[in-house]
Amino acid sequence: MHNFATVLTPEQVIRVHQASLEILEKVGLLVRNPQARQILARNGCAVDEATLNVRFPRDVVEDFRASIPPTFTFYARDPKLDKTLPGDTPVIVTGSSAPNILDPLNGQERRATSEDLARIAHLVNSLPGHDVFSISTLAEDAPAGLFSVTRFYAALKNTVKPVRGSGPPEDFERILKLLFTIAGGEAAYRQQPFVTHHYCPVVSPLTMDFDSVAALIFYTERDLPCYPTIVPNAGLTSPITLAGTLAVGNAEVIAGTALLQLAYPGAPVFYAAAQTASDPRTGVYTGGGPEDFLFGAATNALSDFYDIPLSMGSFATGAKEPNWQAGIENSLSTFMASIVMSDMLLGLGFLHGSRIWSYAEMMMDAEIFSIIHKTMQGIVVDDETLALDAIAAVGPGGNFLSQKHSRVHMRDLYLPQFMDRRPYNEWEAKQDDARDWALEKARRILAEHQPDPLDAKVSEEMAKIIASLEK
Amino acid sequence: MHNFATVLTPEQVIRVHQASLEILEKVGLLVRNPQARQILARNGCAVDEATLNVRFPRDVVEDFRASIPPTFTFYARDPKLDKTLPGDTPVIVTGSSAPNILDPLNGQERRATSEDLARIAHLVNSLPGHDVFSISTLAEDAPAGLFSVTRFYAALKNTVKPVRGSGPPEDFERILKLLFTIAGGEAAYRQQPFVTHHYCPVVSPLTMDFDSVAALIFYTERDLPCYPTIVPNAGLTSPITLAGTLAVGNAEVIAGTALLQLAYPGAPVFYAAAQTASDPRTGVYTGGGPEDFLFGAATNALSDFYDIPLSMGSFATGAKEPNWQAGIENSLSTFMASIVMSDMLLGLGFLHGSRIWSYAEMMMDAEIFSIIHKTMQGIVVDDETLALDAIAAVGPGGNFLSQKHSRVHMRDLYLPQFMDRRPYNEWEAKQDDARDWALEKARRILAEHQPDPLDAKVSEEMAKIIASLEK
Repeated sequence: MHNFATVLTPEQVIRVHQASLEILEKVGLLVRNPQARQILARNGCAVDEATLNVRFPRDVVEDFRASIPPTFTFYARDPKLDKTLPGDTPVIVTGSSAPNILDPLNGQERRATSEDLARIAHLVNSLPGHDVFSISTLAEDAPAGLFSVTRFYAALKNTVKPVRGSGPPEDFERILKLLFTIAGGEAAYRQQPFVTHHYCPVVSPLTMDFDSVAALIFYTERDLPCYPTIVPNAGLTSPITLAGTLAVGNAEVIAGTALLQLAYPGAPVFYAAAQTASDPRTGVYTGGGPEDFLFGAATNALSDFYDIPLSMGSFATGAKEPNWQAGIENSLSTFMASIVMSDMLLGLGFLHGSRIWSYAEMMMDAEIFSIIHKTMQGIVVDDETLALDAIAAVGPGGNFLSQKHSRVHMRDLYLPQFMDRRPYNEWEAKQDDARDWALEKARRILAEHQPDPLDAKVSEEMAKIIASLEK
Repeated sequence: MHNFATVLTPEQVIRVHQASLEILEKVGLLVRNPQARQILARNGCAVDEATLNVRFPRDVVEDFRASIPPTFTFYARDPKLDKTLPGDTPVIVTGSSAPNILDPLNGQERRATSEDLARIAHLVNSLPGHDVFSISTLAEDAPAGLFSVTRFYAALKNTVKPVRGSGPPEDFERILKLLFTIAGGEAAYRQQPFVTHHYCPVVSPLTMDFDSVAALIFYTERDLPCYPTIVPNAGLTSPITLAGTLAVGNAEVIAGTALLQLAYPGAPVFYAAAQTASDPRTGVYTGGGPEDFLFGAATNALSDFYDIPLSMGSFATGAKEPNWQAGIENSLSTFMASIVMSDMLLGLGFLHGSRIWSYAEMMMDAEIFSIIHKTMQGIVVDDETLALDAIAAVGPGGNFLSQKHSRVHMRDLYLPQFMDRRPYNEWEAKQDDARDWALEKARRILAEHQPDPLDAKVSEEMAKIIASLEK
């Protein structure tokens, strides 16, 4: 199957683009970070240092657009595991920075720790179908001043796949020291920058904050991979109408991307906009509604227009557990993302609107993607699959079980891991389900597999860095 | 959004069509019903009375195709509730004839009774978004000889929406007597034939049975609405490859439809093929896998080619309860059916591959459709929804909660019935979920609402018919 969804027509895409240009030109952004204001002023934006308002003339936008590369590479500690987008299938990324987690043993919600991060990185490393480890949770146990280093260390010690993460300005230099050490020096790291930095620099509506913008500039100016996501919430921080939220979100994407291109022309970047809607009864953000699917599909049309890879948050259920609601919300968002050919799907493991991370949910989200991936393969129609010889051989009233054709193609059928296909009485006797099996599989991998460890010398140096930072 | 799925290209559709013609011409069908063999022989098919094999020359197929009408109407007791397909949105039909049910009070699986049928008909009658009541379960308590009459009576007494059902040959005349009585005579019933008869006349591969074929001929020759569904199972009763199962299934659809058109030229009919796959580990039928979604989309392409309305079994999870698996399987099949613009979605309430019917699942399936229906509305892009005035009024850093624009468009957002959007601690305290709420809503409707009752005189006559049949 191929890209067949038209949520926005080409004319509607241009209409949203024009609306965003008008917002950038007439309303502008509040830019709290002075370095960002300098960069923008230097490149033709109208900066008001009294109000911190920055307006973007249309020609500035058109200029920077020319320098955006159409691909993005996530580098990995193991270069064979690099992922360049757009690829044949979407790149699958864990959910990131949830404050809480469901405990893998007793299922209770609690604060997440660096031990959780190590375990999750380990799982991502062991399992096919998980491409990028976005550092999934915070780490309640990180020593003062070592929050970012603790998280990156737990991640990098346990996976050789690409890692995506973030940290506050006071940690920038420490993070780089850690990464250079692991790589065996700055030059080696620059050859294979296996961490992609990621920030949300815009507080909607239209406000660039201080710290995240500082991070974007810091890494981008150093030619290290870094990209921004914007997250307007329809009805709260952006207009309640979908088109209005797309227009504001698109203006914010343009502003963030402009800043990157002006800081380092040619810096790879994503079209990363995770628009969501609020519940109209409470005004509170809720993951997983139909508006989210439409936003996802529409941002795909916009990213195609700008020719930038698209990141889509497709696993972001509002459910509190891996239940019926989680199944619906994550399968519909992921199917929508897949039919519009999103380049990257993000959010495996999230529950409760990205606030809680769950081992079972992570495994189950991967099963959802595998079902959709199989569906996206479509149907092969040729002499072999039309099977006219087998049909004639069986004839009316026979069965195909014993046909050689059936044995040859048995593996063409999808084989689920966590779907219950047992007889009813077997289910009735055990009453276990996908959630139990997913968690059991996660526990088994955690008990049996060992990730490719960091070199002993590196670990030793790491311990020294951490010790020096602890002083 | 509009029809944008291309699971089969036009060339592939023709390839499958040609393969089906070859199967019909060279392999043929085993036709057990002599009346069917007579009709087919009379119209140019090659009938072998020794082997019961019937082959369909290509020109016979081309001939009958010309008489198939492109629309189908489900008539209702209340003519305002008639449904003609294709319409603007798919017609939503309950699952039918499950032998077992989950008890609405204690949740235990048990045999279904006529009281269940009355309750479910009542629910369908009360709830928007349920268009046709396909008699959902069997009825364990039906008196000997009154199986069909008991089921139709329970259904028609409790809903004025269209009813779809079936019964064995010995019940044909009794069923008609019942329907004519309810309508106030045969002429009145013929004006508004509020029951659509439905059968599965083909045992795959390529075998027309006796009773269901007799039923098709009986109703069709009397110009009463009746249509067949075929149900090949890839790897068991049809080739394990999807294209092969499509070719066999399509041949079976053509054969069944040909029989109807030859019995009564111009009889309205559906392209109704519910192909499924077996689990490759056990060879057992399992509802809800990715093959089912692809079969659904492919049959849509075939029904478009033949210009016949499409019925798609989109709620047919293999799950044993309304759980994560049910959420995934029913939302993916229904989304696929919706993006390919299927005319009818069938199966609300089914669990365990159509073997069990559940009140909660029926309510929850309707919620899945409402989410997808909302998604299919797409995005309105105009001056009002782009909201540039509201964006300028709020400016950078404000919020949209108090904007008039937000109040005016609040109802544009989707409002779920059964999705948990509460704070986490509220959920934690109660631990209830969609399933509890769906069942609670069903119970409330059953307690409060009364369906439009049958006229007292009709009920009296009905009681007499049943009494006379009981003798």
